[in-house]
Amino acid sequence: MAQKVTPRSEDYSRWYTDVVQMAELADYAPVKGCMVIRPYGYALWENVRDALDFRIKETGHENAYFPLFIPMQFIEREADHVEGFAPELAVVTHGGGKELEEPLAVRPTSETVIGEMYSKWIDSYRDLPVLINQWANVVRWEKRPRLFLRTTEFLWQEGHTAHETQEEAEEETRKMLDVYAHFAENEAAIPVYKGVKSASETFAGAVASYSIEAMMGNGWALQAGTSHFLGQNFAKAFDITYLDRNNQLQHCWTTSWGVSTRMVGGIVMVHGDDQGLILPPRLAPIQIVVVPIGKTEEEKRTVQAFTDRVAGALKGLRFKIDDREEYSPGWKFNQWEMKGVPLRIEVGPRDVKKESVVLARRDQPGKSGKQNAPLTALREAAEGTLETIQKALFQRAQEEMDARTQEATSYEELKEAVAQGMALAYWCEDPQEEAQLKEESKAVSRCIPLEQEEEPGKCVFCGKDARKKALFARAY
Amino acid sequence: MAQKVTPRSEDYSRWYTDVVQMAELADYAPVKGCMVIRPYGYALWENVRDALDFRIKETGHENAYFPLFIPMQFIEREADHVEGFAPELAVVTHGGGKELEEPLAVRPTSETVIGEMYSKWIDSYRDLPVLINQWANVVRWEKRPRLFLRTTEFLWQEGHTAHETQEEAEEETRKMLDVYAHFAENEAAIPVYKGVKSASETFAGAVASYSIEAMMGNGWALQAGTSHFLGQNFAKAFDITYLDRNNQLQHCWTTSWGVSTRMVGGIVMVHGDDQGLILPPRLAPIQIVVVPIGKTEEEKRTVQAFTDRVAGALKGLRFKIDDREEYSPGWKFNQWEMKGVPLRIEVGPRDVKKESVVLARRDQPGKSGKQNAPLTALREAAEGTLETIQKALFQRAQEEMDARTQEATSYEELKEAVAQGMALAYWCEDPQEEAQLKEESKAVSRCIPLEQEEEPGKCVFCGKDARKKALFARAY
Repeated sequence: MAQKVTPRSEDYSRWYTDVVQMAELADYAPVKGCMVIRPYGYALWENVRDALDFRIKETGHENAYFPLFIPMQFIEREADHVEGFAPELAVVTHGGGKELEEPLAVRPTSETVIGEMYSKWIDSYRDLPVLINQWANVVRWEKRPRLFLRTTEFLWQEGHTAHETQEEAEEETRKMLDVYAHFAENEAAIPVYKGVKSASETFAGAVASYSIEAMMGNGWALQAGTSHFLGQNFAKAFDITYLDRNNQLQHCWTTSWGVSTRMVGGIVMVHGDDQGLILPPRLAPIQIVVVPIGKTEEEKRTVQAFTDRVAGALKGLRFKIDDREEYSPGWKFNQWEMKGVPLRIEVGPRDVKKESVVLARRDQPGKSGKQNAPLTALREAAEGTLETIQKALFQRAQEEMDARTQEATSYEELKEAVAQGMALAYWCEDPQEEAQLKEESKAVSRCIPLEQEEEPGKCVFCGKDARKKALFARAY
Repeated sequence: MAQKVTPRSEDYSRWYTDVVQMAELADYAPVKGCMVIRPYGYALWENVRDALDFRIKETGHENAYFPLFIPMQFIEREADHVEGFAPELAVVTHGGGKELEEPLAVRPTSETVIGEMYSKWIDSYRDLPVLINQWANVVRWEKRPRLFLRTTEFLWQEGHTAHETQEEAEEETRKMLDVYAHFAENEAAIPVYKGVKSASETFAGAVASYSIEAMMGNGWALQAGTSHFLGQNFAKAFDITYLDRNNQLQHCWTTSWGVSTRMVGGIVMVHGDDQGLILPPRLAPIQIVVVPIGKTEEEKRTVQAFTDRVAGALKGLRFKIDDREEYSPGWKFNQWEMKGVPLRIEVGPRDVKKESVVLARRDQPGKSGKQNAPLTALREAAEGTLETIQKALFQRAQEEMDARTQEATSYEELKEAVAQGMALAYWCEDPQEEAQLKEESKAVSRCIPLEQEEEPGKCVFCGKDARKKALFARAY
């Protein structure tokens, strides 16, 4: 902990890796492209998972588990799907000491194998909708890995649903996008744009892909969740049919949607600073750290007795008492700042005399983030401050995103804007124009935001009529 | 649901597969040896997982996540380990469209890759103990798969700990065995023998392996959890060293322990009957099913209004109201019996008049398992009955296991005993004798139970002095 992270202004990418490693969120695995999620990072992921799982179940979905291995011929059955995923596959060719007759893909996503099971399980409209989610690891070979953001193996949830009608499937797709946005904004304190993907960014095999896009501390975009309307593409490839209310055989309409461990990377990059992580209280594994401070044995005894009462007042919150003898209070402050614990409570001999403690906010260093709270009102003060921090983190991120999202009315303005952050600009959705922007500025369209005025304009590239504004940015 | 399961007396193995499939716990996957865990089976597994996870964290462990892929050379580094696992490996030879320079094993267990990380993370005695668990999927190629019991891919938790001293590591190994036994007996209502494995059944790379062994409905044994003392074997193979209190470099002492989805198979086989599953209330996804019964529209209305009040009384318990119009009450009773819901509440017009309901126990079919409860006392009656069922299931299983475990004092008695169930017999631990028994009766030693009298005896095979009795049985 004597180490310091590289300042963001010096090298943002290096800052990110430093924070992830020094805060002990994750480490590089022996196999290139893979990562180890360390206990602190995994505890954060567990909180992400539980908050998402609650919302997924609340909206009527059930969890299940489908196999890791997918026959290669399944992947090949949907033309766009195989084109998109073939270059990223890990392939098992040997099992049980023998070469396999048919190689197996390690799942990059599970539309195919789940489609196969749905075709077996679904007979009639009475079996619909099928609303299933799974929590699983998936593998997509990654040439330029970054911890949490792009790793060959990652953890995620993938929802897969089958419906009677197109309308119902489209409604499901949008509902889950809303669930993701609600999660991101209310739990992770990350403001997002909700939108539909351009053709080049659409999921391999989908009719339409939606995403939530967040802005990282360097102005880049992070796709933090996706929801796909698959039409009847997979239903036709896997023969997912049902007898409708008129006893006619019909193909189902399906959807899929996912959020992954990359969300953890987003939390790091939206909230962190040059001292390390800053975690939103609702997801923080440790919401409060209590640091007792005393020099003499006498002081230590009094402080410890008082700390026990502090612990009593905090019961039910996720707090930790750091009474390690071998480290100084200053060292501990630094360590817990690095780990992004939202609230620190300091207990010194003078506080004990006053029967009060000092609360220090991680998101607001210096005196302005400190307040005294009497022990009698500590519980309320701690809960209130955590709530304040949660809101402040969201608000700061929202202001940052608003300030760094510019409306561009010319191609030059667009290029300038994406060099700083995000840009909103009318676009006729010609993929060649997007390719040109990428070539010249490394930015791409992230999505066409759903919430925008209904007024058409002129394409920022070609001047032709354009129905909607698209969001452009460099992206992870 | 019109189908019936094969009676146990006719074909136990077929009965098991019928129940697992008809209760919709699991289904066969397209890839041979793999399974799909369906929502009902996964909900049961989630309850197993949560109850275990609670105990694992309560005993000071943290969760983390290590990679799916392990370099082949890691597996080869511990001699016994590679000998044990090589024949069961799935091997990835291609990734990202290219042949890999070094093939990757899909983890069959994670001692090796976790050992590699521990060697990086551990420097000093101050870093010890390391107490980490992971929830993950693992792959062991299976030639004769059975749903839940033996599948090529399965889900499990694997704990991996590193310690300063041999004593501490041995204590950890035994502590986790106790945790597993406590879980099995108190949550799954499955009585177990705790014991140490014979040499031939010891984990590949361990110094000593402990297991909990349960008796299935056909008298066979199921190893339901294992805990391994690994000595310094993996510490030496992976260079997991620390500077001790005298500043000397030492190898750590490590352990590993796991429980898998096979526990679900155990729950099916210990408690199920010819009507289907019987789930222990503490783990049942649905503890109570409420079936409203009414013929006329008038009756249906009154019953429905009363059912709302029943639901109010049950709030907080895991219950479901089955008010589907398209199925008869009898059909529903059968379905929920198949699914093993521990308690059924029937609400008919006569019950409404008396302001009471009928409770029917799944584990006690017929009149003796039925009781009336007035609505005013329903909550207490339901909770009490669930608790009674939980205890009754355990007691029945304990009595069954006791009745079918025989003390054998001769080889002939031993062979007779293992044809019926389990046998306890003095054994000098000569592996050739165990091999002979296996050859002649398909039974093997399951463990040497920890709890037994300290009186030595004569080996049931050769008559030589034997320190301990071993438990013998046919096994899954």
